[in-house]
Amino acid sequence: MSNLDLEQLREKVDAVNLQILSLINERASIVQDIGQLKEKQGMEKFDPMRERHMLDLLKENNSGPLDQKTVDHIFKEIFKSALDMQEEDHRKALLV
Amino acid sequence: MSNLDLEQLREKVDAVNLQILSLINERASIVQDIGQLKEKQGMEKFDPMRERHMLDLLKENNSGPLDQKTVDHIFKEIFKSALDMQEEDHRKALLV
Repeated sequence: MSNLDLEQLREKVDAVNLQILSLINERASIVQDIGQLKEKQGMEKFDPMRERHMLDLLKENNSGPLDQKTVDHIFKEIFKSALDMQEEDHRKALLV
Repeated sequence: MSNLDLEQLREKVDAVNLQILSLINERASIVQDIGQLKEKQGMEKFDPMRERHMLDLLKENNSGPLDQKTVDHIFKEIFKSALDMQEEDHRKALLV
């Protein structure tokens, strides 16, 4: 056990962080497309049934070590951020 | 524009969600290894300098559409979950 080990593990975490960053941005971009589609169709942006479906699918596929409560919490923040971003875009569009 | 488009976009989101799930679990597992290393070395688990470094690296690499405030918020939740998990493991170990 050495500082080298710690450094190597931290490099792994940094690499995983960047992959997560890329995916949450990719996700936000797809959600923007969904938002535009829904707006054209006059549909509500927030759909609690859809959120439940996503959380169920995550539960079925969660092999840990994070427990389900934690996974749900992180994803609810991710879901919320995508919705907030759309509201902000919408607000800016109204101000133009 | 049709319900098929919406369904296809939702399938993309589901696929990205599962990739994020896999990565946050992979990350938690590496952080567990780091925690064990630090415990053996008698080091503090929470390191604000390290957290700052991770957030800086994310900022340098964030190409959007999520803004930096949102990225920071999501990652702070992810950081916290990994620390909480270790504290919970430690508490359980003390109770055995």
